[in-house]
Amino acid sequence: MALIVQKFGGTSVGSPERIEAVADKVLRYRAQGHQLVVVVSAMSGETDRLIGLAKAITDRPPPRELDVLLSTGEQVTIALLVMALEKRGCPARSYTGSQVHILTDSAHNKARIQEIDDARVRADLDAGRVVVVAGFQGVDAEGNITTLGRGGSDTTAVALAAALKADECQIFTDVDGVYTTDPRVVPEARRLERITFEEMLEMASLGSKVLQIRSVEFAGKYNVPLRVLSSFEEGEGTLITYEDEQMENALISGIAFNRDEAKITVLGVPDQPGIAHRLLGAVADANIEVDMIIQNIAPDDQTTDFTFTVHRNDYDRALELVRRVAGEMGAREVSGDNRIVKISLVGVGMRSHAGIASTMFEALAREGINIRMISTSEIKISVVVDEKYLELGVRALHDAFHLDQAPQSA
Amino acid sequence: MALIVQKFGGTSVGSPERIEAVADKVLRYRAQGHQLVVVVSAMSGETDRLIGLAKAITDRPPPRELDVLLSTGEQVTIALLVMALEKRGCPARSYTGSQVHILTDSAHNKARIQEIDDARVRADLDAGRVVVVAGFQGVDAEGNITTLGRGGSDTTAVALAAALKADECQIFTDVDGVYTTDPRVVPEARRLERITFEEMLEMASLGSKVLQIRSVEFAGKYNVPLRVLSSFEEGEGTLITYEDEQMENALISGIAFNRDEAKITVLGVPDQPGIAHRLLGAVADANIEVDMIIQNIAPDDQTTDFTFTVHRNDYDRALELVRRVAGEMGAREVSGDNRIVKISLVGVGMRSHAGIASTMFEALAREGINIRMISTSEIKISVVVDEKYLELGVRALHDAFHLDQAPQSA
Repeated sequence: MALIVQKFGGTSVGSPERIEAVADKVLRYRAQGHQLVVVVSAMSGETDRLIGLAKAITDRPPPRELDVLLSTGEQVTIALLVMALEKRGCPARSYTGSQVHILTDSAHNKARIQEIDDARVRADLDAGRVVVVAGFQGVDAEGNITTLGRGGSDTTAVALAAALKADECQIFTDVDGVYTTDPRVVPEARRLERITFEEMLEMASLGSKVLQIRSVEFAGKYNVPLRVLSSFEEGEGTLITYEDEQMENALISGIAFNRDEAKITVLGVPDQPGIAHRLLGAVADANIEVDMIIQNIAPDDQTTDFTFTVHRNDYDRALELVRRVAGEMGAREVSGDNRIVKISLVGVGMRSHAGIASTMFEALAREGINIRMISTSEIKISVVVDEKYLELGVRALHDAFHLDQAPQSA
Repeated sequence: MALIVQKFGGTSVGSPERIEAVADKVLRYRAQGHQLVVVVSAMSGETDRLIGLAKAITDRPPPRELDVLLSTGEQVTIALLVMALEKRGCPARSYTGSQVHILTDSAHNKARIQEIDDARVRADLDAGRVVVVAGFQGVDAEGNITTLGRGGSDTTAVALAAALKADECQIFTDVDGVYTTDPRVVPEARRLERITFEEMLEMASLGSKVLQIRSVEFAGKYNVPLRVLSSFEEGEGTLITYEDEQMENALISGIAFNRDEAKITVLGVPDQPGIAHRLLGAVADANIEVDMIIQNIAPDDQTTDFTFTVHRNDYDRALELVRRVAGEMGAREVSGDNRIVKISLVGVGMRSHAGIASTMFEALAREGINIRMISTSEIKISVVVDEKYLELGVRALHDAFHLDQAPQSA
C-alpha cells in the first residue's frame, strides 16, 4: 500500500463527464490498496470566465480580490469530484487551500507555499477517505486567500506529497509521458520510463512543456518521485526521480528544441570589463528575457563578439535597444536573425562519456546543417541552426543516438 | 454617523454593470458619513448553474459538498463588488463566511448561525474600509463550509447587524417597500413607512414574500431595525421595528392574501380525544404542510367537523390520505375544495380595538362574498372565500379600512 498524491488539470476535469472519468480512475488506484490525495484545477474555461467578470469591472483588479475570485474555480471542482466519488460509494472529502491550511506568504497572485498542516489530511486517510484538495490556492498568516500563480496546481500536488512524505506524486496531463523528443517531429520518438529531475528541468525549459518548471524544482528539492501520466489513456507514464543505476546506461535522454528563438550579435565591441552588463542590463531593464549568451574573443584581441538569444516576440524591441547601446559603446556592427531555432541534447549520461558533442556535430554535418551557435552545460549541449533545419536536425540526432531504442545494459 | 449593514440580493448583483450600480449606491451612503458592511448573494442564475453541474453528476449530492460548491457563488460576488468599490477609490475588503467567522452548527444546507466574531469587521471599519461579506454561508466548529439555506443572505445581514449592534439593517430588494396590499390587485395600495415585526411576519407568511420569515424573526429577536428598500430606485422604503407610539393610530397595517390554498373538510367525526392528531399526523407524515386548522362542534354533540387547508399542489395527495384515515375512523363524509383563497387583515392595532371583525365581515357581505372559513389570531383575521372573489374582496377591505390613506392621529 502506497500513499499517492494525484493531480488532474483543467482539461481533465473540464466537464461533469470528465470529472466522473477522473473518479473512475481514482477508484482504480484505490482498488489496488493505495491511499489517495487528489489535487484538482479549475474546470477548463472557468478561470477565463472569472477573469472576464473582473475585467468587465476594472482593468486592474486588486490582487487580494482577484485571488478571492479565482480561488472559486478549484472550489467548484473539488465539490464535484467528491460528489462523483461518493456516488460510487467511495468516502471522500474536499478541502480548499485554506481549509487544509496550505500556508503561503502574502504575495497575492504569485504566493509561495511556506508550510502545510497535514494533520487533517492524515486523519481522513486513516479513516479510509479519499482527500480532494483545491490546487493553486492557499491562505496567508492573516487568513487571506492567496493563489500560487500559473501552474500552481502542480506545485500544490508536489508540496502536499512532500508534506505527507508520499510515495509518489502523479501528474495527469494530456500526454502519456515524457518523450525522447516531440513525436510530431520524430514519429519514432519513444516514451521514457524514467528521467532525472535535472534532465526534466532542461527538457521543460527548452520547450517540452509537460510540467511546470517550479513544481519539478520543488519535487527535486524535497525528493518527491514525480510521475507524468495521461488522464485519458492507461499507462505507466514517465517517472522523474534522482539518478540511479538503472539510468546510467543512457547517454542521452532526449532532444528538446525551441522554435521561438531569435539571436542578436554585436561585433567588435571594445573588450573591457562591464561590457556584458551594459548590453544585457539595458535588455533586462526592458523586461526582455535572455536565453543563451555567448561571447567570443575576436582575432585582434582588442575587441570581442557578443551574441545572445531572446524570444522571437521580443526581437524587434531588443534589436533596436541593442543598436542604440552598441552605438554608444563604439561597437563595429550589430546584426540579428529571427529565423533560427535551438536544438538541445539532454542527458545526465553525458557527464561521464566523452564524444557526445563530436557525434552530435558529425550527425548535423552529414545532413549539411550549419551550426550557428553552440552552448553547453553539464547535462546538455545546445546548438542554434537555421529555422529550416529544425525537423531534419532533430531527426538526424534522434537517429544518431538511437533514441528510438530503449538503452541497453552497458 | 451610523453603522449600517446592507444586503443586496442576486438580482441586484446579477451582472458586472449591476454590481457597479451597487457600488455607486454604497458610496452614496458612505458619503453621508456612515460605516458600511455589505452582504451580497450570488449573482442571479449562478446558484442554478452550480446546482446544474452537481445534478449532472448525481441526483443526491452529499450535503457537505453541495455547500462547498454553492458557497463559491457569493465568493465571486464579494470579490467583484470590492473591485468595483476600489476602482472608485473606496478602500474595501471582502470576506467569506468562513473568514469573518460566521460560526454555524453543522446542519449542511440549512445551518443556523451560532456566533459571529466581529473583531475583524470592526478593525476594518475603524480603518475606514467598507466590509463586504458573502451571505448565505458560514463555517462550523470543525472548519467545514456550511450554507444557511433559502433566504440565507438576509439572515447573514441581520445576524451581522445584531453582532455589530448596527443602527439599521437594510435589505435591498426589487420592491421599494412593504405595501398595504399587492398593488397589482389594488392600485391604491400604499407603501407603509413603518410596520412591526409581528405584522411583517404575518404579512410574509401569508404571501407578501418580501423578506424571508427567518430573517424577520431573527431581527425581532435581537431588536435589529430592519429596512426594506429598492435596489433600483431611490426612497425610504419601509422600516420594520417594534411597536412605538407612532404606530398605535393604525388599526390595520395591511391585507395579505394567498392564492395557493385548498381546503379539506371531514364531517361527522366521532368527537374523541386524539382525533385531530390521527387525521393531521397522517398528513404531516407525508410531508404535507398544513396552514389553517378549524374544528367545530357539530349540533348533535356526538360528532365534530374538522377542516384544514394545505398548499394547492398537495391537495390531491392530502385528500386521498384523509379519505383513507377518515374511513377508518368512521367519519360521515370527506369533502374538499381547491378553488379557494385566503384573505387576511393584519395589524397590531386590532388588539385594542373592537369592531374590526364586524367591519370586515360587513364589507365582504356588501359585495355578496360568502365566507367559507374564519380564523383569528391576536393581530390578524383570516377568511377563506371562493377563488373568484379574491380581487373583489381585497379591494373591498382596502377601501373599508381606508388603507389608501396614511393613518391620522387619533
